[in-house]
Amino acid sequence: MNTEDQREKPIGVFDSGVGGLTVVAEIIRQLPGENIVYFGDVGRTPYGGRSKEQIIKFTRQDVNFMREHKVKFVVAACNTVSAAALDTVKSDYETEILGVITPGAKAAVGATHNKRVGIIGTVATISSDSYAREIQKLSADIKVFSLACPLFVPLVEEGYIDKEATRLIAEDYLQTLIDVDIDTLVLGCTHYPLLKHVIASVMGKGVKLIDSAEATAHELAEILSHNNLMRPWTSDTSHKYYVSDVPDRFSQVAGQFLGHNIPNITRVDITRY
Amino acid sequence: MNTEDQREKPIGVFDSGVGGLTVVAEIIRQLPGENIVYFGDVGRTPYGGRSKEQIIKFTRQDVNFMREHKVKFVVAACNTVSAAALDTVKSDYETEILGVITPGAKAAVGATHNKRVGIIGTVATISSDSYAREIQKLSADIKVFSLACPLFVPLVEEGYIDKEATRLIAEDYLQTLIDVDIDTLVLGCTHYPLLKHVIASVMGKGVKLIDSAEATAHELAEILSHNNLMRPWTSDTSHKYYVSDVPDRFSQVAGQFLGHNIPNITRVDITRY
Repeated sequence: MNTEDQREKPIGVFDSGVGGLTVVAEIIRQLPGENIVYFGDVGRTPYGGRSKEQIIKFTRQDVNFMREHKVKFVVAACNTVSAAALDTVKSDYETEILGVITPGAKAAVGATHNKRVGIIGTVATISSDSYAREIQKLSADIKVFSLACPLFVPLVEEGYIDKEATRLIAEDYLQTLIDVDIDTLVLGCTHYPLLKHVIASVMGKGVKLIDSAEATAHELAEILSHNNLMRPWTSDTSHKYYVSDVPDRFSQVAGQFLGHNIPNITRVDITRY
Repeated sequence: MNTEDQREKPIGVFDSGVGGLTVVAEIIRQLPGENIVYFGDVGRTPYGGRSKEQIIKFTRQDVNFMREHKVKFVVAACNTVSAAALDTVKSDYETEILGVITPGAKAAVGATHNKRVGIIGTVATISSDSYAREIQKLSADIKVFSLACPLFVPLVEEGYIDKEATRLIAEDYLQTLIDVDIDTLVLGCTHYPLLKHVIASVMGKGVKLIDSAEATAHELAEILSHNNLMRPWTSDTSHKYYVSDVPDRFSQVAGQFLGHNIPNITRVDITRY
């Protein structure tokens, strides 16, 4: 296949649910010419509390689905998948798969001055220790402090963005990171950028927040550009959305993530992949 | 099989996860002689946001698992299952299946004086409208007000029982029920009894709370006693716990529900049932 045909192919983005849409929003912002196929595994969400073995199985099915859609590149827009499954699954496929951990880790290493970095995410992401490992691969003298914040995802999905209850929970969770004097905090879950304001105000001005969605879209842009695979910006881009259960709730929450409604969402049976 | 053998058989209790343990706790309290087999579908939890079709499929597998354990009676200790699947699934089985909706509805009808009853539960339970239908079957002139409270389950699972954030969220959610002057409120989700204190204090003294776990164990006791199937209370009762993913998190949260730790939890592959 020639490069031009290759360029036309879509980017495949998948997530355990709706959270990966923060990555889609960043791809649309940073790479406005790209066609996108999105899959949200809402029928089996959340991955965050499940075993490594199950997460690996689900990830394989998600990637198989993307390959059927002849994507040029797969983005695992899910911290849990990136942390728990990608190392195992990547080598089975020819198509390149980019997770959100490496870009987030790189951005954190570039941002910290006092070499003390915090990571927040789901239980699975945090207990995998992937961010810490990735950061220490890049700079061994950085100290990493990790913390699971399991209520942040349901709060975002309920639209509890600017509420006093959310602030109290954030204060509760984040105090241990304030105590250890970090200057950089990685939002290691795709839902968390929606809580950026409350997290920033609890952490205080001295702490820089790293949005892994933004970092991932940036890394993707660099890879595509380097390989001459970026699709030029024309008006006729296509963005397709697939989910693994009824789309009602996905469609409700999606608006918060993308800033606009999604007109067509297709339901697929992911267990057959 | 004679009645004595039949009596010895365990009660099968299943739930989408850990919540059904409130029903187990009540069965142990009200029927201390019974052997119990519990299955928590932690690998596919929560059911609450899924489609009716998926919930029905999962329920069939859960009941099949129970039948393999030769239970004398199945309790669907999950409001979502009771609301969305039980009517469809019940007729496929010889074994009797008791849900939590009918007992909760009966108790509410018995408790209300002003004939204004509130129901709180998951999105699936509330949108199924099952409690309202069941209550109006029993007493057509009762007005029912239903409300989904999606954050209550994650709050309980995070141990946010006596926190200010939980009170603020409860105040937020419950205001619409206070406004319509109910005198009875059904806790239509097995997690909610753990928030009884905060819900009671937000609703005020004039509102009676109906705990569907308590009502279900009570109904079960009546049925068993009526059919001469109650197992006498001896010291050697057996309680067995099964889950569909790694038991770590189940075991952590279970303590909050049962008031004691569970020593042995067995993992099973529920998709093969």
